[in-house]
Amino acid sequence: MTTIEDVAKLTGYSRATVSRVINNYPYVSEEKRRKVLQAMEQLGYVPNSIARQLRTRINETIGVLIPRLSNPFFSKLVDSMESIAAENGFQVIVCQTRSEKSRELLYLNWLKTRQMGGVIMASSENDWDVIKEYRAFGPIIFCNEYPPHTEAPIICLDQHKGGYIGTKHLIERGHTKIAHCYAGSQFTNIRERFTGQKQALEECGLELREEWIFKDAYDTQDGRRIYYEMMALENRPDGVFTSSDEVALGILAEARKNHTKVPEELAVLGFDDQPIAELVYPSISTVHQPVEKMGKAAIELMISLLKGEREPRQQVIELPLHLVIREST
Amino acid sequence: MTTIEDVAKLTGYSRATVSRVINNYPYVSEEKRRKVLQAMEQLGYVPNSIARQLRTRINETIGVLIPRLSNPFFSKLVDSMESIAAENGFQVIVCQTRSEKSRELLYLNWLKTRQMGGVIMASSENDWDVIKEYRAFGPIIFCNEYPPHTEAPIICLDQHKGGYIGTKHLIERGHTKIAHCYAGSQFTNIRERFTGQKQALEECGLELREEWIFKDAYDTQDGRRIYYEMMALENRPDGVFTSSDEVALGILAEARKNHTKVPEELAVLGFDDQPIAELVYPSISTVHQPVEKMGKAAIELMISLLKGEREPRQQVIELPLHLVIREST
Repeated sequence: MTTIEDVAKLTGYSRATVSRVINNYPYVSEEKRRKVLQAMEQLGYVPNSIARQLRTRINETIGVLIPRLSNPFFSKLVDSMESIAAENGFQVIVCQTRSEKSRELLYLNWLKTRQMGGVIMASSENDWDVIKEYRAFGPIIFCNEYPPHTEAPIICLDQHKGGYIGTKHLIERGHTKIAHCYAGSQFTNIRERFTGQKQALEECGLELREEWIFKDAYDTQDGRRIYYEMMALENRPDGVFTSSDEVALGILAEARKNHTKVPEELAVLGFDDQPIAELVYPSISTVHQPVEKMGKAAIELMISLLKGEREPRQQVIELPLHLVIREST
Repeated sequence: MTTIEDVAKLTGYSRATVSRVINNYPYVSEEKRRKVLQAMEQLGYVPNSIARQLRTRINETIGVLIPRLSNPFFSKLVDSMESIAAENGFQVIVCQTRSEKSRELLYLNWLKTRQMGGVIMASSENDWDVIKEYRAFGPIIFCNEYPPHTEAPIICLDQHKGGYIGTKHLIERGHTKIAHCYAGSQFTNIRERFTGQKQALEECGLELREEWIFKDAYDTQDGRRIYYEMMALENRPDGVFTSSDEVALGILAEARKNHTKVPEELAVLGFDDQPIAELVYPSISTVHQPVEKMGKAAIELMISLLKGEREPRQQVIELPLHLVIREST
């Protein structure tokens, strides 16, 4: 077998110089680099580090696909995954899809080029039929959000129950006209929360008017807009299930400016239980999502898949949600 | 030169099977894998993808060292870097040091093992004498925070001016007993803000009493604690420069509970201008840090260093800060 000494002999450089080229150190002249690489190809020399990488089979880089890091839900999720990955000698690559189908495929392609060993999808824009083609190149698991008909491991939260207990709480506080805000209709989570809300309303014989359903509710700006849309209605809601603490925050900011009494005239329920929910005035009642537990479960599963300790079979691990009651309801 | 066909011939497997082993696809039997790797070593075959990686010299993975992603300042910083990296075909690995010296060194070591091509340090725990040893393995640049005597590129914000204009504003609003909160004394940023505050006070003949200086001010919990520490003083401050929107938020939450009038009895100045600063009640006056601009400058510099378009020479790029006046002052 060819050794580093053979390459040194053929080029006339020292073993150290050859090593510096192999390991890609800076401050090596272009000519030396070229000659060493030429000799390596000529002799068919495979550096040990690369040979080892081929032998061990484990690619220790895990891609985590999220819409945006600036959403605290996702930064907290990546935070929890990264800690456990690092403890186990794995690396987490953050991939922001910005909810774009094409960016999601760009990152999935990094599985093909071996820039990642496996992918955890915390959001998904493409259909399962498109995503499943990438399974041949490494394990894919879903965490939080997943497309319909997914045949991969899923770690998620019981969103139906989240919608149900949140709405029940608003009803118990005496509210009867309860609006619903949602982000994008393609999300499983969103649909689950919606069916949860509808179940709670139906059980109490309450209606959900079409005009009380507000879409494109992602952040505080959307919350502000929705506040005015609600107030412009002749038959105004007296409670709102926002699906997001940030949307709740935007609604509450405008309610304060316009002297709408919270929770008497308008009860506002958040979703997530971000740190901010407790700190603002009025503090936000919300549905607590155990983000850290979910991140831990997903990264541990991925590490064991990459180590070959488990098979990536279809399974759903569902974690429970619970209600946190504060001032906004 | 040895080709993939030679490996196929020697093993008796198809070209496709050899390719699956090289590219580390799942569902290849252990025996096939072993035989192919053996033949590769015997023949000295270097897969094209690896040969290309050696030839192009560019390691497209950039490590970004931050204390924690759950701090919105750092998630926003990584967010801005990741977008530009992805557009240029580079990947960002998030490395949470949790402000621990040992974890910082663990990640810097990933330069040695080629898990990263370069490192952007957005925080630094170790001394420059320790960090500089890793420069031999790839470019290191500092972004936001840096240790004294650094001989590497630095992208930072004019923190002295931040301390100065923030304090001047509190003085102009009629406050004369202005407290100072800071995180850890090892941070350059923190020291710069402190000297800025002292300069503003000295120019106006105001004193900064030892008991008005509060350390370990990182988050909302610390802000809550500091509120009570301030209120317990005989000679209470009537304004506070918090060095952080999150600390300001904690102080304001307790001020509200205890009916302390803001800003009359206590004016509170944040730092960062996080989205939350505008949304809470009272909204937080703060010093705006152009996080996205800083992240963009750092990642663009790193990409050009990795491409060999520039040399990693010592330089300081300082971006300006400005004041945003809201209700808390």
